[in-house]
Amino acid sequence: MKSYQKEICLDMQSRMEFVNITYKVEEALHESCIQDGLCLVNAMHITASVFINDDEAGLHNDYKKWLEKLAPHKPLSQYEHNLTGEDNGDAHHKRQIMGREVVVAITNGKLHFGRWEQIFYGEFDGRRQKRVLIKIIGE
Amino acid sequence: MKSYQKEICLDMQSRMEFVNITYKVEEALHESCIQDGLCLVNAMHITASVFINDDEAGLHNDYKKWLEKLAPHKPLSQYEHNLTGEDNGDAHHKRQIMGREVVVAITNGKLHFGRWEQIFYGEFDGRRQKRVLIKIIGE
Amino acid sequence: MKSYQKEICLDMQSRMEFVNITYKVEEALHESCIQDGLCLVNAMHITASVFINDDEAGLHNDYKKWLEKLAPHKPLSQYEHNLTGEDNGDAHHKRQIMGREVVVAITNGKLHFGRWEQIFYGEFDGRRQKRVLIKIIGE
Repeated sequence: MKSYQKEICLDMQSRMEFVNITYKVEEALHESCIQDGLCLVNAMHITASVFINDDEAGLHNDYKKWLEKLAPHKPLSQYEHNLTGEDNGDAHHKRQIMGREVVVAITNGKLHFGRWEQIFYGEFDGRRQKRVLIKIIGE
Repeated sequence: MKSYQKEICLDMQSRMEFVNITYKVEEALHESCIQDGLCLVNAMHITASVFINDDEAGLHNDYKKWLEKLAPHKPLSQYEHNLTGEDNGDAHHKRQIMGREVVVAITNGKLHFGRWEQIFYGEFDGRRQKRVLIKIIGE
Repeated sequence: MKSYQKEICLDMQSRMEFVNITYKVEEALHESCIQDGLCLVNAMHITASVFINDDEAGLHNDYKKWLEKLAPHKPLSQYEHNLTGEDNGDAHHKRQIMGREVVVAITNGKLHFGRWEQIFYGEFDGRRQKRVLIKIIGE
């Protein structure tokens, strides 16, 4: 069994933002020389998500509106968590809806994907540098 | 390390529908001859889910009602995504609640499950053929 | 490839409760002698979750309030599932929001975590003994 890991850094400009990281995962897969196995991609932050969906700007706007409705940023006082001095109570909730991680099959040296699957990093408390972990095991 | 993959096809009659695919995963596991490892089962579509829960018709009706409340299909105009000509904006949201994939432990050649765990394919934009990927690695 | 599995038991006093199980996963990892690979941690019950987030009591109270709003326990009659004699229809919904499982990378014999990541068992139909499965594969 071979294994490979890589942490990638992302500069997130906005509080809430989605970035397509598929090519970065493909790059890591290429470096790993693994042909067959499983690839884990996870946010290393607890106010962020890694998820798989469509690379379509309208959909991403829909997600932002929907997540803001399900877990609004304001008023800050609605979250007991914000009593710690944070203002990101909402971000911890949004991340649970969108998920922390994805696991992707590797077959013949490629991400074994359906036609429209793309991997995104979703940030809900951004405006600084963030990290994503890619871990691949296989042969 | 051994690995095995299999794509299964499902004909989904309704827009929203849940199908128990546990026996299909067990079949693939048997074919793989893998006794110990991990099994990934994921939707290959971005308007569908694979999830683990109870095989109880009343619960599935509850899920459908609840998901329709959290992300209604109509009016179509509430989703910017539908401006692309699609009418499945809601389905992309429902899938995020129910999840894309499950990872199941394999021990002694069996799915290592609690008593009531069953694997379902959940479709939110059906009425055509869909694919699920099963990938097993182990020994 | 090596593999290791362990079921841990938890006594849940309340209907809804979150327990930090990170040290139990670290203990299992130590027992496994695996240095590099993947670790699956999943609830063996379908009214419970395993998730990764912050170990902060205020946040956990926020989650409880939020989940109760998204899928209220009462009135029991709002869930068709409760016609089976159960009163846990809500718990099956709460579990889908928080997720069934997490997959964590193992690097150099440690959980490869960001600074604040902690693993929790989340119970939504407690007041009896529950089980969590830890499965580790790697080398």
